Amino acid sequence: MKERMSKAVLDVKMSGIREYGALAKAQPGCLMLTIGEPDFETNDKIKAKVSEDLESNLTHYPEGNGEPYLRQAIARFEAERNGYDYTADEVIVTAGATGALFCALTGVIDPGDEVIVPTPAFGVYESIIKLNHGVYVAMPTADDQFQITREALEKAASSKTKAIVINSPTNPTGCVLNEKSLENVCQFALEKNIFVICDDVYSQLVFTENYRSLASFRQLRNRLILVNSFSKPYAMTGWRVGYICADAPVRAELQKVNQNTIVSVPAFVQHACETALTMDTTAMRETYRRRRDFVCSRLADMGLEAVKPEGAFYVFPSIKKFGLDSDTFCRRMIKEALVAAVPGWCFDAEGYLRISYCYADDVLAECMDRMERFVKSL
Amino acid sequence: MKERMSKAVLDVKMSGIREYGALAKAQPGCLMLTIGEPDFETNDKIKAKVSEDLESNLTHYPEGNGEPYLRQAIARFEAERNGYDYTADEVIVTAGATGALFCALTGVIDPGDEVIVPTPAFGVYESIIKLNHGVYVAMPTADDQFQITREALEKAASSKTKAIVINSPTNPTGCVLNEKSLENVCQFALEKNIFVICDDVYSQLVFTENYRSLASFRQLRNRLILVNSFSKPYAMTGWRVGYICADAPVRAELQKVNQNTIVSVPAFVQHACETALTMDTTAMRETYRRRRDFVCSRLADMGLEAVKPEGAFYVFPSIKKFGLDSDTFCRRMIKEALVAAVPGWCFDAEGYLRISYCYADDVLAECMDRMERFVKSL
Repeated sequence: MKERMSKAVLDVKMSGIREYGALAKAQPGCLMLTIGEPDFETNDKIKAKVSEDLESNLTHYPEGNGEPYLRQAIARFEAERNGYDYTADEVIVTAGATGALFCALTGVIDPGDEVIVPTPAFGVYESIIKLNHGVYVAMPTADDQFQITREALEKAASSKTKAIVINSPTNPTGCVLNEKSLENVCQFALEKNIFVICDDVYSQLVFTENYRSLASFRQLRNRLILVNSFSKPYAMTGWRVGYICADAPVRAELQKVNQNTIVSVPAFVQHACETALTMDTTAMRETYRRRRDFVCSRLADMGLEAVKPEGAFYVFPSIKKFGLDSDTFCRRMIKEALVAAVPGWCFDAEGYLRISYCYADDVLAECMDRMERFVKSL
Repeated sequence: MKERMSKAVLDVKMSGIREYGALAKAQPGCLMLTIGEPDFETNDKIKAKVSEDLESNLTHYPEGNGEPYLRQAIARFEAERNGYDYTADEVIVTAGATGALFCALTGVIDPGDEVIVPTPAFGVYESIIKLNHGVYVAMPTADDQFQITREALEKAASSKTKAIVINSPTNPTGCVLNEKSLENVCQFALEKNIFVICDDVYSQLVFTENYRSLASFRQLRNRLILVNSFSKPYAMTGWRVGYICADAPVRAELQKVNQNTIVSVPAFVQHACETALTMDTTAMRETYRRRRDFVCSRLADMGLEAVKPEGAFYVFPSIKKFGLDSDTFCRRMIKEALVAAVPGWCFDAEGYLRISYCYADDVLAECMDRMERFVKSL
């Protein structure tokens, strides 16, 4: 019956990232730099809240959009940390950032609508756009140091453009969009009357002082859907909790998607998430900064050039000079050097490699040694 | 920007059930029979597993389709309890039955495809069909004692029919489909080459000996998507965990929807769900049976006729003889009698009332007294 299934679903590909993880696992002794997941454990204070909630029998249906105390805590956090003015009633608690992105994109796409995605990009955008019968429009940024120019936007635009997805710091490059890029997107979104899906999941993992999110552009408030997650800053990937902030009329529609995909996140994880928002993430961020400096320096030494990442926990060096496509490069590196990375094609950008540095220092050091030998052998 | 949002999302209505719950809460002293949620707490043995998992730091990404031990436990449970032959690799762990239904319907609907839903029915089917740009085709069953006839199926069918949703025992009637209904659906699905979404969330709450699910019709295996949930049998509504079982080629496609809506359910609830499957649900079921007998007897005494429910925890009496539409009836009953029920229109069936009897005995007794006085006053 596969042939009778939804053409949209048949057209969606499984994540390529996990494919290379599986290849690595099948290769004895192979070390992995493939996973975009903190190697830290969730803080005990956060975990303790779950046991408390279960003790109190918070095992019944919670409010669909998230319990009021958590939505208030999120609104307060976004106000104090970022200066945003969302109310608790403009928040929806979702199944991670993926759930938030699904709600956001489903909420704005009619069949045939085009959504611009600056590439390289996380593959889930393309998949969700396709599941909604939308058209994924890749907008390459590699020639512009992964920044967004007016020219690139114009080239990607059409009368069917409905939205643009922005992710800064960016997975897979770790790059932060500069003020000019943000202004270009802002002006473009207003002129074309389109939505901005602002995926800020790495916004707490930034190593520069001058970071700014598109969500701070107040003139975009009625069309911007802010997506965030507890996964990365608090090492809570396995909890599957994220959130949306959006202007009340937009949020009123998006909640329908959440209600009909998950109903709500579990009742007994919500005090834990409230606690997470009070945590100081400085130490974790400084660890990533140190690892970034180490990995970037080693890559530079072995002649792998990359735009310096200013956030997240990825670096995206070019491998163009070796004349191998990224799939071949990665497969050979797994087999010959016992190090796995994710090829650029998984992010719609050929000629690159994504290295995740959310691994322990000794693992990173050993991987860099192995990569250096591999690169020299090419 | 609301006007620029997805027409499908704009077209979806918020759940009417919660609307009447809110009305009831706003009326001081009002008792509620509106919620489809066990009044029991989750068993302590189940809850304990979460704390154990958190202690073991199971806070990282689990397998997207569910951890292998849980999928194996589900496959074993379905084999031992129901005689089904799904392998662990034919299971997907989802965000409750709603998540499972979303995966199933998204997996089969192309824009314009029609999905037949026997009514009265749970409103989430219509919403999910619409979110997928499908066409919801209500197939009324009230004139056939909520059973499914060949004639009704033929009347609902068209060349665009892609699937039928079956839910037995049924929310809101509590009725169990008889052998003839099941055979009609089976034959129809094979002849028309359509999918069967088999929502069995109440299958463990059945009070008769001769219950059978469509999932036991082996000739439907390649086209049947079994949906189930931990919510109702184990009093785990707030956990948001359910599952799909489907033929391998179908399941391979459905997992893409799960991956792009939630990635996975939380890592640390999965051993708890495994434990839930070992629980004896007899005592809970017998409690519901006793309550059903009580409520049905009281309703009969006050002249409210209903097809006798054989499962779930609902009864769906007719209110046609009072000459009031179901909205008016329910609003007046909240105001005048301080009892809330859900009007039939919420389930696409005018002239009825859904009474949920998953409430404590004394609450049910008081509600029946109040309803009796109300009915006499009409």
